[in-house]
Amino acid sequence: MRQVAIVGVGMTRFGRLPEQNLMDLLVSASVEALEDARATDVPVDAVFVGNMAAGLLNQQTAVASALVDRLNLVPAAADRVENGPASGGSALAAGYRAIKAGSAEVVLVVGGEKMTHVPGAEVTRTVATLTHPVAERDYGVTLPALAAMLTRLYSQKYDLSDWDRLRVAVKNHANGALNPRAHFQKEVTLEKAASSPLVADPLRLYDCCPVSDGAAALLLVNAAQAESFTDVPVHVRGSGQATDFQVWHERPDPLQLPAVTTATKRALAEARLAISAIDVVELHDAFTILEYAEAEACGFVPAGSYREALTRGRVARDGELPVNPSGGLKARGHPWGATGVAQACEVAWQLQERAGRRQVHGPRTGFTCNFGGFGNNIVCHAFSREPGREGKNGG
Amino acid sequence: MRQVAIVGVGMTRFGRLPEQNLMDLLVSASVEALEDARATDVPVDAVFVGNMAAGLLNQQTAVASALVDRLNLVPAAADRVENGPASGGSALAAGYRAIKAGSAEVVLVVGGEKMTHVPGAEVTRTVATLTHPVAERDYGVTLPALAAMLTRLYSQKYDLSDWDRLRVAVKNHANGALNPRAHFQKEVTLEKAASSPLVADPLRLYDCCPVSDGAAALLLVNAAQAESFTDVPVHVRGSGQATDFQVWHERPDPLQLPAVTTATKRALAEARLAISAIDVVELHDAFTILEYAEAEACGFVPAGSYREALTRGRVARDGELPVNPSGGLKARGHPWGATGVAQACEVAWQLQERAGRRQVHGPRTGFTCNFGGFGNNIVCHAFSREPGREGKNGG
Repeated sequence: MRQVAIVGVGMTRFGRLPEQNLMDLLVSASVEALEDARATDVPVDAVFVGNMAAGLLNQQTAVASALVDRLNLVPAAADRVENGPASGGSALAAGYRAIKAGSAEVVLVVGGEKMTHVPGAEVTRTVATLTHPVAERDYGVTLPALAAMLTRLYSQKYDLSDWDRLRVAVKNHANGALNPRAHFQKEVTLEKAASSPLVADPLRLYDCCPVSDGAAALLLVNAAQAESFTDVPVHVRGSGQATDFQVWHERPDPLQLPAVTTATKRALAEARLAISAIDVVELHDAFTILEYAEAEACGFVPAGSYREALTRGRVARDGELPVNPSGGLKARGHPWGATGVAQACEVAWQLQERAGRRQVHGPRTGFTCNFGGFGNNIVCHAFSREPGREGKNGG
Repeated sequence: MRQVAIVGVGMTRFGRLPEQNLMDLLVSASVEALEDARATDVPVDAVFVGNMAAGLLNQQTAVASALVDRLNLVPAAADRVENGPASGGSALAAGYRAIKAGSAEVVLVVGGEKMTHVPGAEVTRTVATLTHPVAERDYGVTLPALAAMLTRLYSQKYDLSDWDRLRVAVKNHANGALNPRAHFQKEVTLEKAASSPLVADPLRLYDCCPVSDGAAALLLVNAAQAESFTDVPVHVRGSGQATDFQVWHERPDPLQLPAVTTATKRALAEARLAISAIDVVELHDAFTILEYAEAEACGFVPAGSYREALTRGRVARDGELPVNPSGGLKARGHPWGATGVAQACEVAWQLQERAGRRQVHGPRTGFTCNFGGFGNNIVCHAFSREPGREGKNGG
């Protein structure tokens, strides 16, 4: 079976970017990824764009078709992949499969979203299009409300305090302060986070990721050709995706995230990697509680023990299992369709030892978890510096 | 390399379906495809939903995640694929690649759109989201306007009359009259078509496909397992996609459709089939001129000669190369995301000899062309009764 390698990485700064529209952002990240791979003259076979809401927020459909034109990559195949806030992860999975299937040798994967040009209420209304229209939306359920309820349940079961939870924000802001592409490049204290305004009780402002503009891109190739592009390819070893019941209150145990567990197992099985072999992780901390819940559902730490991993510094940038060295969604920002690709960009930079001041110590393997809906569509990927056992020539 | 077979086919009636929402339509087509394959108890690994505008028209994102829940297919992977009016073709391509890549053994591909519940002006505004916002949309360019300009150019070059062109509508309505799932199940005379109201000069009402609701579904499996599902598998032999410059007037020769030519070549090369070996064809006749232009750009007939193929009956249902035996977009209808899947459903039914009163004579191979944007993103597939040369066990 053919194997897949990342040979180029690109990403815009995330944040409020009033001068760039969605297409500008997608182009900017793409060009950086192509230049990074010295591939500006190489035919690209396919382009997959992860984007959640270009129709609703930007009055554009078929953005992938427009992008190949702007990049002068015609006649490359081009599709937009949409899986809510996990659209980027799904676009990466689509690119990976295109190479594995033998349909393509060189694939550009781009994720992006332009969100800050519309009023906050429109962003809220747009993200509510993910929820069940009758069983959730009509009752006023929003994603922050769901996260608040999950936080309450988790906090009751494991006696979690506001401060315990907000340590996620403190850690991720400390990492983001070292990331020149992060939306927020400043540290925050526990005191400040805990005194920030309530958003959805008990969640405070610092429990929630911001609304951001941004795009991220990866150039993927058949691993057998990776060395003609870069000296430091990063191997996409496994891709796993799983769904859960859409309506949160219909799940057997709303505290569990079985789709996270299943997607993780699928990605690691394909990668032939044990979870204990993972060196650096990007999780989808759209809300602080999600870093807790995902780290435990993935199996990086036992249920109820992420607080200890946080307080002991195990998941800090210099810990044994750095989680969200990029700053995560909390500090890097969360342009929906960009996030899944940006997570993979960070893991690639870390494995290539190109992460600058936020570089973690010598990672050989990495893992990403991109969280769609409210935990009902999860996309995970496992990466390594080395090719898989079948050998980089495709076995 | 693994091969892919269709083992189940499902499709709603197309038309104005006021009692069914988008999710109802997707569920209905899916259940029929699963039942057709006797696969209601079989685990489905992945679901791909082709849909263009659920965000704009239905205020729903992540419709694939919602669908797996409604179908009780959790934890199947699920993604929406969007490529404008070729979203269905792209969803089929995604499902095909998932099996070829070894990521899935059983894949449900669904395409659907719910359009008739909004005013016509909103449909027009939504389809305009495909065009370039500055170079086209701001100037008031609509898809009917582009089709009218293409019609004028073609008509000048090849001395085509209104009647010549409207023979496409007459043929496709005659076919649709025999299709119990078609939006329009009635014949139309050339006289009536030629005296219908002008939409965009020279295009008349009968030059244009209707606005329809509907969904279509296919169950795909690794061909090595096809016989455990059905006695009449249909093999997806090749998948080809290609793009062109987005802005029609920026293309070197606006009369050419090079993406159609390239996508056809890619699909046929993968299928190892010559175009002369194709027995039945579904083209994307959103406007009558497109059946002309696509048939010629695919290479089924030489440039400028489709008129002759039409007038001699060569592309009629009982001709040597039936084109759009389903009724095409003109009569079957065109719920954007559904169309590409519905085209493949028709070819599958024809190859299985299950097309009822519109059955063509003993086809062994078939071909579909799904047309995105205004010819700037084309998805073609080639099908056959028999597996490819590598053998049905996957070679």
